[in-house]
Amino acid sequence: MKIISSYIELETGEGIALHDLMPGLRDAVLQSGINNGFVTVTSQHTTTAISINENEQRLLDDVKTFLTRLIPPTDRYLHNDIALRDCPEDEPENAHSHLAAMLLGSSEVIALADGVLVLGQYQSVMLYELDGPRQRKVNVQVYGE
Amino acid sequence: MKIISSYIELETGEGIALHDLMPGLRDAVLQSGINNGFVTVTSQHTTTAISINENEQRLLDDVKTFLTRLIPPTDRYLHNDIALRDCPEDEPENAHSHLAAMLLGSSEVIALADGVLVLGQYQSVMLYELDGPRQRKVNVQVYGE
Amino acid sequence: MKIISSYIELETGEGIALHDLMPGLRDAVLQSGINNGFVTVTSQHTTTAISINENEQRLLDDVKTFLTRLIPPTDRYLHNDIALRDCPEDEPENAHSHLAAMLLGSSEVIALADGVLVLGQYQSVMLYELDGPRQRKVNVQVYGE
Repeated sequence: MKIISSYIELETGEGIALHDLMPGLRDAVLQSGINNGFVTVTSQHTTTAISINENEQRLLDDVKTFLTRLIPPTDRYLHNDIALRDCPEDEPENAHSHLAAMLLGSSEVIALADGVLVLGQYQSVMLYELDGPRQRKVNVQVYGE
Repeated sequence: MKIISSYIELETGEGIALHDLMPGLRDAVLQSGINNGFVTVTSQHTTTAISINENEQRLLDDVKTFLTRLIPPTDRYLHNDIALRDCPEDEPENAHSHLAAMLLGSSEVIALADGVLVLGQYQSVMLYELDGPRQRKVNVQVYGE
Repeated sequence: MKIISSYIELETGEGIALHDLMPGLRDAVLQSGINNGFVTVTSQHTTTAISINENEQRLLDDVKTFLTRLIPPTDRYLHNDIALRDCPEDEPENAHSHLAAMLLGSSEVIALADGVLVLGQYQSVMLYELDGPRQRKVNVQVYGE
């Protein structure tokens, strides 16, 4: 079994922002030369998430509204008392971003058959930026033959 | 390493409905002839989810109540303005289903040892229908030797 | 491809408690002798979850506060009517723990490259105890060469 590791690197949008990873994933599969196996997609950050959804602009705006209401950034969080933590004093106040990442999850695994990612018609693997803008990395590993 | 791909197809229940995938998964493992490796289970839809839970009827009713309260279908969502989107005009108003799928996740990976899925006594891999009833497909891929 | 299966066993904390699995995972990788491949981490219980987050004590307290507010243990749940279920009468009233586990998810998959788990600087794979204290098991399977 071959294992080909790569990264998708991107500059994310402001606050909560969704980025479609499908072009990068299809490119990683093509570059790997692997036709049958599977692909793991794992975020490398604690304030981003990987999840599958429809890439429809109005829905992406609903996601932002929903997450902001579910986990208000303006609530009181202990993690945001930067002065009480052992960390640089310019650390961002982003407890709400960590909580959203916890709910959405950091990895997905997708089967690969005949060179194509086995996903439904409307499914896009997405990076959910939860504390942007930032420079981000997503690990993509392709396994198979 | 062998890779055996298959689908579980099912007609789901009304609204939010939970379907135990264990009989289908055990059958896929048996058919594959693979004893040691792992299994990926990936939903092929953006308004269903894959998650592991106890298959207990009263708990499944709690799941429906909880998700309906957390993400009310009657709230205002931009995705539900069908006329403003580039899509067929009979598209369902199901933004709440997409948001629930985002939270629950679309894939699980389960180890396979000596022909048995490595799960605890009360764990069932389930398909969560979030906008039923519909005809649905779940990809099951078995890897190993 | 080699497949090495093991378990991390631990006695968890009271109520909602987070346990960093990284020492156990790094040990499982070292013992496996595998340098390139991937690792699956799957909870063996329906009232625990596996998720990736920053191991920062004040954030972990925020997680407990957030989950308790999102899914109050004191709410009314059908699953908690122990007398109406076909189960031992000393079964715990833990519907809220099942719902939290459903949201957080039961598995993560992490790439392994040159003997190192491919994770970002602040990422720790954690067991989320949602109904502790209990004796718990986490399946760790290492695949590769």
